[in-house]
Parts: sequence; C-alpha cells; structure tokens
Amino acid sequence: MKVREASFSTAIFTLLVETTTSPEFVDITDKIVESLGDSEIKNGCAVVFSRHTTAAITIQENEPLLLNDMAMLLERLAPRNARYGHNDFSIRTVNMHEDECPNGHSHCQHLTLGSSETIPVIDGSLALGQYQHVFVVELDDDKMVPREVIVQIMGV
Amino acid sequence: MKVREASFSTAIFTLLVETTTSPEFVDITDKIVESLGDSEIKNGCAVVFSRHTTAAITIQENEPLLLNDMAMLLERLAPRNARYGHNDFSIRTVNMHEDECPNGHSHCQHLTLGSSETIPVIDGSLALGQYQHVFVVELDDDKMVPREVIVQIMGV
Amino acid sequence: MKVREASFSTAIFTLLVETTTSPEFVDITDKIVESLGDSEIKNGCAVVFSRHTTAAITIQENEPLLLNDMAMLLERLAPRNARYGHNDFSIRTVNMHEDECPNGHSHCQHLTLGSSETIPVIDGSLALGQYQHVFVVELDDDKMVPREVIVQIMGV
Repeated sequence: MKVREASFSTAIFTLLVETTTSPEFVDITDKIVESLGDSEIKNGCAVVFSRHTTAAITIQENEPLLLNDMAMLLERLAPRNARYGHNDFSIRTVNMHEDECPNGHSHCQHLTLGSSETIPVIDGSLALGQYQHVFVVELDDDKMVPREVIVQIMGV
Repeated sequence: MKVREASFSTAIFTLLVETTTSPEFVDITDKIVESLGDSEIKNGCAVVFSRHTTAAITIQENEPLLLNDMAMLLERLAPRNARYGHNDFSIRTVNMHEDECPNGHSHCQHLTLGSSETIPVIDGSLALGQYQHVFVVELDDDKMVPREVIVQIMGV
Repeated sequence: MKVREASFSTAIFTLLVETTTSPEFVDITDKIVESLGDSEIKNGCAVVFSRHTTAAITIQENEPLLLNDMAMLLERLAPRNARYGHNDFSIRTVNMHEDECPNGHSHCQHLTLGSSETIPVIDGSLALGQYQHVFVVELDDDKMVPREVIVQIMGV
C-alpha cells in the first residue's frame, strides 16, 4: 500500500478521434499516456469518457484478428439489419434530424459496452497490464466529424 | 488542458428512483445536474452508482423507440422465461427470502450493463455529449420500494 | 448531501487473485473492505481495476446457482468452441507466445463485462447495497499465476 496525501489536481484533455467504419476499434492508449505526462499528476486515476451514445470505451488486447472477432460479436449481439423502432422514421418523432441515419444497432451494441473506464495512475504511469490497450469503439458509420473523448486525470 | 489544484471536496447524494416495470429506462440526468449544482464542486467527476444487482446504470439517448429496442435486446440476451438455477426455489438455499421472485434474467441482463458510470465535471457542468442521458435501468419487476442510486461528486 | 473538504489522499493495493477454471466468479469484497480499512480514507471512492483482458470486474449477488447462470450466459454470448480468428495460430502474427492458448471466447466475453467498477466510500464504508458483492470474473483457463486486481482508494 502507498498512501499519498497532498493538494488535489484535475486536468482535462479532449481527444478528437477520427473514425472511418464500424465497428472500428481505435487504439488511443498513446494519447492517454501523453495526456498523463502533460498533466504532471503522479498518483490518482484517469477517467476515459466517450461523449457519444454510438461510440464506446473498452480496454482490450490490440491483436487485429481479435478486433475482428469482437466486431463480429457486436454484430451478432445487435445485427445491423435487424428491426429497430429507432430506425423507423415513419413513426419516430424524437431527435429527428435532417441527416438522420438508421443506427439502432449502434446504440444497442453500445449498451453492452459502456461509456467510461477508470484506470489507476501510479507513480506517473497508467496501471495497464501487459496486454491492455484503451480503445474507442466506433459503432456508427460515416462520421464526418471526429469523436470526442474526454481524458480526465485526477490526483496528486 | 486545464489543471486545477486546490483542496479536495466530495459530496454524496442518494437518489430514490421509483420504477414500475422492467426493463425500464428511467432518465435521472436532471437529478444528477441538480446534485452537481448543490455540491458547488466545479471540476472533478460524478460517479453514478446503483446499489442493486438488478438495476443498472447506463448512458444513452432518450428516444422512446430506442429505449424499447434496447429493452428487446436485453430480453434477447437473457430471456425472462429461460431456465435459471437462481429461479429454482426447490434446490436454492442462499439468499432465499419470503418474498423471493424468480429474477435470474434480471441479474443476467445486469451483468452485461454494469453498476456504475463516471462522468467528468468541467467548469460546473457534466461533460455529457448532446445525446447523452444517464439512466437507471430497472431489470426486475414489482419493486415496492424505490431504487437507491448514489451520486458522488468529487473534485475542487 | 454531505460535503467534505480536506487534503486529498490516494492509496493503492494490488490484490493477487488465484483462479482455477473459467468462467469463474471470485468474490473479492472482503479484500476490498480490508484495503479500505488500511487506507484510513473515510470519504471518496474505490476504483477496482483488472489488469487483464480476459479477467473482468463485476458487481453481483453471491448466490451459487446465479453464478452458474451467469457463466452459462457468457458461454452463450461467446461460445468457447465457436470460430475466432484470434485462435487461428496458422495466420496470426501479433502477440504470439510459446504458451499461447486459444482464448478468443475469453476476450469476447470480457468485452461485454468491462475492466473496472467505481464504488463510493461513505464514512469509512463501501456504499454497496445488501446483495452487492464485487467479483473478479476469470474468463480464461489454466492460469498458472494469480490475477492482478488494483484497488485504489481515493478521497479524504
């Protein structure tokens, strides 16, 4: 056990993450490490938070065949071509926009993943295990603007 | 990047959330915003934590047809009428109470969702994206007493 | 609402968790409570973080039949004997080690669970509900070395 006691700091970084397809796993570990260095916070935690309901945060191994396996799992859990009320623009009235695309599957896939992960920070390093990489999981297509991910470092 | 350094505060709020059916998505965003205002904490994070194993926390879009799509996904993942050992009161011995109801599906659905989400707080606001709302997801029926959700604001 | 303002402390504990099979739910609640006591932190939060991509953290009820139901759900979501590119050692090139075992299902099951949970700490106690226990979920077989779980207590 190590106890640190000092005045508290918090640093906020907004990552802009470009995505091209879905499901797509974009490894943002290096950017989080860079943010941590810039924060000069040594002990505390890093909250990684997606500001989107069709882009999730997960921690997994960065092995390309596995990323494809996980993409196929997401498609099995909530197939793109299944029937979603959210996609029925003839009856839907809420949050309808000009450029609305059918993405019920994206939201449903997101539900099984989640919006945030919290990673301990110890002696200036993320406490990730050997195979752990942090990913933004893009679940929606044709995103013309980058996804916003907040990295918040808190501690001492 | 913004770094804030000051003495640390934590504020705890217990929300009592009434539910009527399952799966039911109850939007608690306004209550969290109100708690944040009362805390007078400006930079840090909000931990939203369900004190129940059959009521989860998720962040999603509040579009009624989508909430129904997600309810149907949960039913597909762990159908109410499938066979669960947890529901076999003839052999189960642990945590058996007088008013025990068969809710194996509720626990299994909860497993895919999770008990907490952590949301950054920046300049006195929750850093939620345009479509993000925080929900308690009721997965069990006939709850006579409200669900307890803890909102913890930490920071400076 | 209770607001506490004081100088901030963080304490780190690394739990070594022995596992024997998969999926296996190992209850680590007592060890977290013990860590909390040792930290002498009274108000804040506990981050529970798995350092593995095939061992997850979840909060559920410790009822043996239910743990078996949840193990069966994980097997249904990502069956051990399904086809995974991650298991095809004839084409895979990344992260191949001498003792590599086919565990695509373990990673996919982990994807639906997650790596961390954050639990509020109030007046020296974990704010767990009556039925909430914290589990490491072992998803991979034949682990010769214990799993590392970080318990980070932060607060005042």
